[in-house]
Amino acid sequence: MKPLYFTPGPAELYPTVHQHLQTALDEQIGSISHRSQKFRDIYRFTDEQLRILLNIPSSHGIFFTGSASEVWERVLLNCVEHESFHMVNGSFSRKFYDYAQSLHKFTHLLEKPFGKGFDFAETEVPEYAELVAITHNETSSGVQMRTSDIHRLKKKYSQKLFCVDMVSSAPYPDLDFGLIDSAFFSVQKAFGMPAGLGVWIASEACLEKAERLQRYDSLTIGAHHNLPTLWKLYKTFETPATPNVLFIYVLGKVAEDLNKIGIETIRKQTEEKAKALYRFLELSDGYQPFVEEERHRSQTVVVANTTKPSAEVIAAVKKAGMIVGSGYGKFKESQIRIANFPATSAGQINDLIEELKRAE
Amino acid sequence: MKPLYFTPGPAELYPTVHQHLQTALDEQIGSISHRSQKFRDIYRFTDEQLRILLNIPSSHGIFFTGSASEVWERVLLNCVEHESFHMVNGSFSRKFYDYAQSLHKFTHLLEKPFGKGFDFAETEVPEYAELVAITHNETSSGVQMRTSDIHRLKKKYSQKLFCVDMVSSAPYPDLDFGLIDSAFFSVQKAFGMPAGLGVWIASEACLEKAERLQRYDSLTIGAHHNLPTLWKLYKTFETPATPNVLFIYVLGKVAEDLNKIGIETIRKQTEEKAKALYRFLELSDGYQPFVEEERHRSQTVVVANTTKPSAEVIAAVKKAGMIVGSGYGKFKESQIRIANFPATSAGQINDLIEELKRAE
Repeated sequence: MKPLYFTPGPAELYPTVHQHLQTALDEQIGSISHRSQKFRDIYRFTDEQLRILLNIPSSHGIFFTGSASEVWERVLLNCVEHESFHMVNGSFSRKFYDYAQSLHKFTHLLEKPFGKGFDFAETEVPEYAELVAITHNETSSGVQMRTSDIHRLKKKYSQKLFCVDMVSSAPYPDLDFGLIDSAFFSVQKAFGMPAGLGVWIASEACLEKAERLQRYDSLTIGAHHNLPTLWKLYKTFETPATPNVLFIYVLGKVAEDLNKIGIETIRKQTEEKAKALYRFLELSDGYQPFVEEERHRSQTVVVANTTKPSAEVIAAVKKAGMIVGSGYGKFKESQIRIANFPATSAGQINDLIEELKRAE
Repeated sequence: MKPLYFTPGPAELYPTVHQHLQTALDEQIGSISHRSQKFRDIYRFTDEQLRILLNIPSSHGIFFTGSASEVWERVLLNCVEHESFHMVNGSFSRKFYDYAQSLHKFTHLLEKPFGKGFDFAETEVPEYAELVAITHNETSSGVQMRTSDIHRLKKKYSQKLFCVDMVSSAPYPDLDFGLIDSAFFSVQKAFGMPAGLGVWIASEACLEKAERLQRYDSLTIGAHHNLPTLWKLYKTFETPATPNVLFIYVLGKVAEDLNKIGIETIRKQTEEKAKALYRFLELSDGYQPFVEEERHRSQTVVVANTTKPSAEVIAAVKKAGMIVGSGYGKFKESQIRIANFPATSAGQINDLIEELKRAE
């Protein structure tokens, strides 16, 4: 029997992915031109399904990149002339910040220790920061920021562009795109697809900024996947370069499957599964939730300290056909990370809890 | 019956691609961590197979991007401080040049009319150009540059970095990587895979240049997929961001399949199929080869003027289950483009010729 992946991405494939890939191959979607009506229909369909799922208004475009990491670079090139502000509390928010430094932006840093989260009340955004970079879900530490806090922050600093990394949580967070200017994710996390496609959501305000920066000689907004070019082609559901047509097709189909269940149900299921996991961790002798503050605990990536070396726990549950992730970086040996994505059911989470109990 | 794609990319899938994708899914390669030994083994295997196929020495690294278009940007950011030189004779070599302009490089242009090719003897490279950008095969016009001419040019200008776009010809061109510093391709052309993966080959000389430029405050080599970061992780067969693991696996397997046939045989088959196509076009009343000079005629993308409107020809062969490409840009209605990739056999090319005859 094949093991079940509870790793926080790449992760267990969503149950319908195989069938969608098979259909795509049967329909020769790997061979069609990305300038054909058939491709434009695929892009349009995926766009529509993502708009329904994530409640994206027509003020925002939806673009495809090679990965979410690529979007870190694109949003900084296109939306920051001088200064960006980064809320960093783990390895991936740190990488977003590192990208800004590599691009020679003037970077402001608000940092929290690993495992700690951000609240609205204590967050001050520097005056000249043009972009606020928030990581909704830190895949490394299992910390989330409440969307209500993100929204309040944007209302307080309404003139700044807000960009939310929701790589390992989308479609869970109920972001209000009436407030949020840009967000992005990759498909190998909660969408349960193989890696190789990033999705970038950006507003007209982002486009206007990029168009303004494009006229300057003193900086570049990049040549590949810059926002004005992406947007221009997006109007006819095309892309500047040949994209990952197969995965764009599958993403639309998976989003449709999730829409059939309904985003509210998916959010509720996610929260119930997360609750079961955290309750188990709290009552257990072998584990404890790494993130102390309940309001900061991730609903999609649950991180636990292990009493035993984590390698022993990982090996024990692996024997039962379940793969959980190790801790990130220096927590590799003392933590496990458990993905709580739509691809795994409440029953499967309960099975995992039983195995974790046995492995205590 | 499914139609056969003779389009110049995305193109007909190589016959083994379905099976390799199926095996990858069976082995859950869509779910494995890109930090696992299993992924490193996949990268290593694909690297080995590409080295055999393209005769790549250990002085060069092999890296993965989202597309070949992305590599245009990466090579310009990483290998050009001020000035690049572009040999432009079609829409894709022009885009490489446009990318350099968007990145505010000082660009030198040597231009030929659509359908014309470059020869060694007439090519002068400007003194301060740091990088020579050559498109081995212009997908838009069906023009190739002889590798012997590329090599002679590099020998004449040995201090400059030479970068060869072989997007729609690799693995056909017998590039000498003892001379050529960088080359790149995408997998949806002659490798017969779905789009969504670019391959970038770069030498230690490119790396040294990038490392030097990285120390300057006055420019950026980019944050995502810059060469020093790619190379550092490449040493352990890892990638900076989560790559398209599934397609890297399939690419290795397709390269292995091609190696089993042998690159010399593939080149010979390609030339024989091209010869049959061009011979037919020359003798036909309904078509003529667009590229007049035989030495500039592409072996992998054959472009023909059509006596009838090309849409009629395309519709006629489509009825017989064959898809050929339309002309590019303003030649859309007066030309057809025929891919001559390893995925289609000599017999299938002959069938196409028969249908083209009927459609005259």
